[in-house]
Amino acid sequence: MIIIMKPGVTRGNVDHIVEMIESKGLTAHLSQGSQVTIIGVVGDKTKLAHSNIEIAPGVDRIVPVTESYKLTNKKFHPEDSTITVGNVSIGPGTLTIMAGPCAVESADQVMETAMAVKKAGASMLRGGAYKPRTSPYSFQGLEETGLQYMKDAGEAADLRTICEVTSIHALEIAVKYVDMIQIGARNMQNFELLKEVGKTGIPVMLKRGLSATVDEWLNAAEYIVAEGNANVVLCERGIRTFEKATRNTLDLSAVPVLKAKTHLPVIVDPSHATGVRAYVAPLSKAAIAAGADGLMIEVHPCPECALSDGPQSLTFEDFEQLCDNLDPYAKLAGRMFR
Amino acid sequence: MIIIMKPGVTRGNVDHIVEMIESKGLTAHLSQGSQVTIIGVVGDKTKLAHSNIEIAPGVDRIVPVTESYKLTNKKFHPEDSTITVGNVSIGPGTLTIMAGPCAVESADQVMETAMAVKKAGASMLRGGAYKPRTSPYSFQGLEETGLQYMKDAGEAADLRTICEVTSIHALEIAVKYVDMIQIGARNMQNFELLKEVGKTGIPVMLKRGLSATVDEWLNAAEYIVAEGNANVVLCERGIRTFEKATRNTLDLSAVPVLKAKTHLPVIVDPSHATGVRAYVAPLSKAAIAAGADGLMIEVHPCPECALSDGPQSLTFEDFEQLCDNLDPYAKLAGRMFR
Amino acid sequence: MIIIMKPGVTRGNVDHIVEMIESKGLTAHLSQGSQVTIIGVVGDKTKLAHSNIEIAPGVDRIVPVTESYKLTNKKFHPEDSTITVGNVSIGPGTLTIMAGPCAVESADQVMETAMAVKKAGASMLRGGAYKPRTSPYSFQGLEETGLQYMKDAGEAADLRTICEVTSIHALEIAVKYVDMIQIGARNMQNFELLKEVGKTGIPVMLKRGLSATVDEWLNAAEYIVAEGNANVVLCERGIRTFEKATRNTLDLSAVPVLKAKTHLPVIVDPSHATGVRAYVAPLSKAAIAAGADGLMIEVHPCPECALSDGPQSLTFEDFEQLCDNLDPYAKLAGRMFR
Amino acid sequence: MIIIMKPGVTRGNVDHIVEMIESKGLTAHLSQGSQVTIIGVVGDKTKLAHSNIEIAPGVDRIVPVTESYKLTNKKFHPEDSTITVGNVSIGPGTLTIMAGPCAVESADQVMETAMAVKKAGASMLRGGAYKPRTSPYSFQGLEETGLQYMKDAGEAADLRTICEVTSIHALEIAVKYVDMIQIGARNMQNFELLKEVGKTGIPVMLKRGLSATVDEWLNAAEYIVAEGNANVVLCERGIRTFEKATRNTLDLSAVPVLKAKTHLPVIVDPSHATGVRAYVAPLSKAAIAAGADGLMIEVHPCPECALSDGPQSLTFEDFEQLCDNLDPYAKLAGRMFR
Repeated sequence: MIIIMKPGVTRGNVDHIVEMIESKGLTAHLSQGSQVTIIGVVGDKTKLAHSNIEIAPGVDRIVPVTESYKLTNKKFHPEDSTITVGNVSIGPGTLTIMAGPCAVESADQVMETAMAVKKAGASMLRGGAYKPRTSPYSFQGLEETGLQYMKDAGEAADLRTICEVTSIHALEIAVKYVDMIQIGARNMQNFELLKEVGKTGIPVMLKRGLSATVDEWLNAAEYIVAEGNANVVLCERGIRTFEKATRNTLDLSAVPVLKAKTHLPVIVDPSHATGVRAYVAPLSKAAIAAGADGLMIEVHPCPECALSDGPQSLTFEDFEQLCDNLDPYAKLAGRMFR
Repeated sequence: MIIIMKPGVTRGNVDHIVEMIESKGLTAHLSQGSQVTIIGVVGDKTKLAHSNIEIAPGVDRIVPVTESYKLTNKKFHPEDSTITVGNVSIGPGTLTIMAGPCAVESADQVMETAMAVKKAGASMLRGGAYKPRTSPYSFQGLEETGLQYMKDAGEAADLRTICEVTSIHALEIAVKYVDMIQIGARNMQNFELLKEVGKTGIPVMLKRGLSATVDEWLNAAEYIVAEGNANVVLCERGIRTFEKATRNTLDLSAVPVLKAKTHLPVIVDPSHATGVRAYVAPLSKAAIAAGADGLMIEVHPCPECALSDGPQSLTFEDFEQLCDNLDPYAKLAGRMFR
Repeated sequence: MIIIMKPGVTRGNVDHIVEMIESKGLTAHLSQGSQVTIIGVVGDKTKLAHSNIEIAPGVDRIVPVTESYKLTNKKFHPEDSTITVGNVSIGPGTLTIMAGPCAVESADQVMETAMAVKKAGASMLRGGAYKPRTSPYSFQGLEETGLQYMKDAGEAADLRTICEVTSIHALEIAVKYVDMIQIGARNMQNFELLKEVGKTGIPVMLKRGLSATVDEWLNAAEYIVAEGNANVVLCERGIRTFEKATRNTLDLSAVPVLKAKTHLPVIVDPSHATGVRAYVAPLSKAAIAAGADGLMIEVHPCPECALSDGPQSLTFEDFEQLCDNLDPYAKLAGRMFR
Repeated sequence: MIIIMKPGVTRGNVDHIVEMIESKGLTAHLSQGSQVTIIGVVGDKTKLAHSNIEIAPGVDRIVPVTESYKLTNKKFHPEDSTITVGNVSIGPGTLTIMAGPCAVESADQVMETAMAVKKAGASMLRGGAYKPRTSPYSFQGLEETGLQYMKDAGEAADLRTICEVTSIHALEIAVKYVDMIQIGARNMQNFELLKEVGKTGIPVMLKRGLSATVDEWLNAAEYIVAEGNANVVLCERGIRTFEKATRNTLDLSAVPVLKAKTHLPVIVDPSHATGVRAYVAPLSKAAIAAGADGLMIEVHPCPECALSDGPQSLTFEDFEQLCDNLDPYAKLAGRMFR
């Protein structure tokens, strides 16, 4: 931690800070410039957590030196992690495709989709049974019945399953049915939910919040890992910006940024990011080229009839063609696929 | 709802849409331009909710005509609402000041603060017992013990109390201790929590999400009201933008925008919005001038020692002076205060 | 300047940096932490400007300690500046209202508006003769003819005049007609134009760029002042965010932020910020309450007929009523007005 | 154009609008819903340009149906354009790499870089002679001398050259030296400069403004094409968002969006977008996979010594390796390269 003092600070102000630091058993290093005095703090800075040095007299600002996330930080765990979900490995050397409808609507819809996406190359089935919708008057999901459909379809098609949960109650039910839990963008900082999912130990995919920085995202992942659950995968799904040509702005630079900052695998969801079916294919290729460990893609037997997010869903034919086109990109990236 | 067709659309494409509309018992109005065909839909558009017309062949885009929020919409409830919390009225003609520490730290801290803010002019006591913190290693709150301290201090100082809840579990406990519930920015779209707070009937203050549009915010409020709880107050607390000179960017234009779109009262929180103590006073005055029904201000007996958000907290002296300075602004706005 | 080294850096990496620093005649202060080494640089850091230390081996990042703007920086000029435009003073103790049409359309339109806004309380006449329009097919302004109309109207109504220029060519013409030059948001970082306006010495109002941070804005002002023209006024006019309920998001917190960082006066333009006539009055009051030195307001004899930005323009009656309502706010802020 | 009326509008209000429309020789189509009345306007809407219908009594809002850019619009020019710069073709079937230093610093630096990037696979040489810098105290460029160095190096290495201009004056000089003109992000809406570059007929690369929407960007391109210069290439270089892990946020979804909306070629600049050397390679691959027609990459003989943007520059070795790695991505995209 570095403390930058205001110009014209008094000797007394500086001494006061130095005393605060040393009283906690830490060491203060003074750099006296022509205009500005800087104090470097050496030692375990958590001891200063509640000192609010930044409002002590004469202090201009504080610059943190180390990140607050530790368990998810690549600096302390340089090797990339592989997360296993049943027989599926997410991480270096593999390309994991999670595909399925935005919302589970019926047993047939899920079963039919599971068979189609398995055949095309997906290794996991996605589907929403608890839907966080902007308006209370939109379709909210089939809940436990939907989870049963997912389980049946996953078993029939030999696909691992992933479902979003939006509350602790839903989590308690979902762990009985699905292989992996998704925390959606709106709940990325629902810390109570993160702690609970951390206690279950089940593999979890944590989507980036609409306006979450990479640092906040990794701190949210830290909540899960700190409870003892290291099976965390991150999912970039677009951030909120001024641009409205796409629903959100897919931040593909987050992929190499995450690869530099954390050892956790990274999945990209181009369907939710863009909200437009025609943009899913080019951005899927781009995501693999940027280094993603997998993709989450919306597929629906009849996008025109979907109860949720139809406009961004691929048909079975679209999805099969997409997988064929992704094949050489996976090979270039040195990733096993299909 | 208006459907804008692509240039060069075929007669068959248009007929297909018209049939879809009429098959639901609605009426289609055609406007045939030189370049573009437009179809207006007349009737109850919820019947078309799952038709996904935007991906039917030949469709360029859909333009919604009416807002999806109804109960919170000023168009259907033109009179401004007043929400009562015990003997406190929030709404037209009053200026409600909610003040207190970011986090409840001890019985003494809360009691002392309650007495000081009451004396200066606050009518409600704020304090966090469940703290949503970016890092899992930061202070997370005293929970039920903190709620008891709030209750004791509120009763002693004759102040109504407000506390944030971050889970359904916390909500169930908090309703036993406090007069008003706060839903924080990170939980604005925690729809399960919104529904539960809607069922309780307790007055609730809904903070704006960091990247929530006014429309999404009013839809979130609609979740609460749709469960039968009309006692909702909105709180503008800054949005996330590229600017980092303040912690968030306080969007004071949201105050007149909300006054035009909804009948619910609006509170402004300049402490969290800016994160800087020196900016609280000018923006408090500005909020009243812009039409706010009240303010939420952080006050701490010793900001230098605060366990959370010390740098943005006012001392008792600061707060007393602020209230004195706000007095003429309240009068100008025609609002009762102190 | 502070240099933060990566964890596990070698002794050689650190020595290399220290040599670079000392070879320029500067001093390096080392703080050796348990995890991280920090190097403080003491002396004139411009000597290191092109050293690109941040990509030297072992460097994690660089933290600048002092701002790059000097002449506009309050740290070095603690007293607030007053800028004079003829008999008008912009700065502490006064409230300057600049009013007039978005675009100059005819001699009559400008003359009529000048008389009306003078009567209501404005001291300066605004009007656009060079209009930067998003589409090349929109009305682009009357250019020199428009400037002549402004000059005539300003003289007749005893108002000082301000006009935007969008090129060096326009600047050369405008200085012959108007009392103050406006640099618009789109040209805030048109550095060639800033340098030229700096050479003229004419009073200039620099609007904030749509996505400019306060630091970038003050650096842009520094371009003008560095050329010898200290007569600079800043104008907050809304920034671009995700929110679309207003055209831009008026950042009123920028007012106290600027008051803390610079000695230059600050004007607020609620007309362009919101794009909606009904929001101009509440945000004008709020701007004064937040500490603004003046307002820029669009007024048009017939907003329904305006060639540009009619929807945000006030009628003469609206404007007169607004000025009446602003009176007590000016008094509260200790500012002379009318 | 569609006009949406407020609920409870009077018959008179509607008649007034219909008369306005018909008085201009246009046709009005009425859709009378249960809650809302909608008026569709058929005919040449430019006749209504200055009518400001949105503030007529009873009007809620206006929805434009067609884009304001015409010459750059794919709807009217469905075939993708190829722009030729000497013997270089930018467009379908080719991958154009523009490489070179951020700033031209010396004859040797440019010559050496030109030889290296040519050998590795670039077909164009980039280099800045006029540098728009945030601070007036940063290096501003060698100007005409720098252009001469570019010309010499381009001829010696058989590379076409591209240079940014920041004013009409610089443009007049630059056209004598370089093969293609760059308009930088800060000048994307410097409309006077756009018009002038439109008159020259020289090939021009228009970078996206920091906070420009795709629509504003295409309108800016329209300014150039409307003056008779159809040789326009667009360059995505990152937009400004809340995320600070990269200098800007590279919006790769803009590539497929542009491919859907315009016939102009699209280049991606990952160097300026990220500001970090290590992220250039993964995002270059991703850009090609997303459909880009080329890349602009910063290369410097000694990034540690660069006068501008060293941290994001590749060394010659880095660049050669990058080109080797891009080869299979170009082939997959069906693009000729090297």
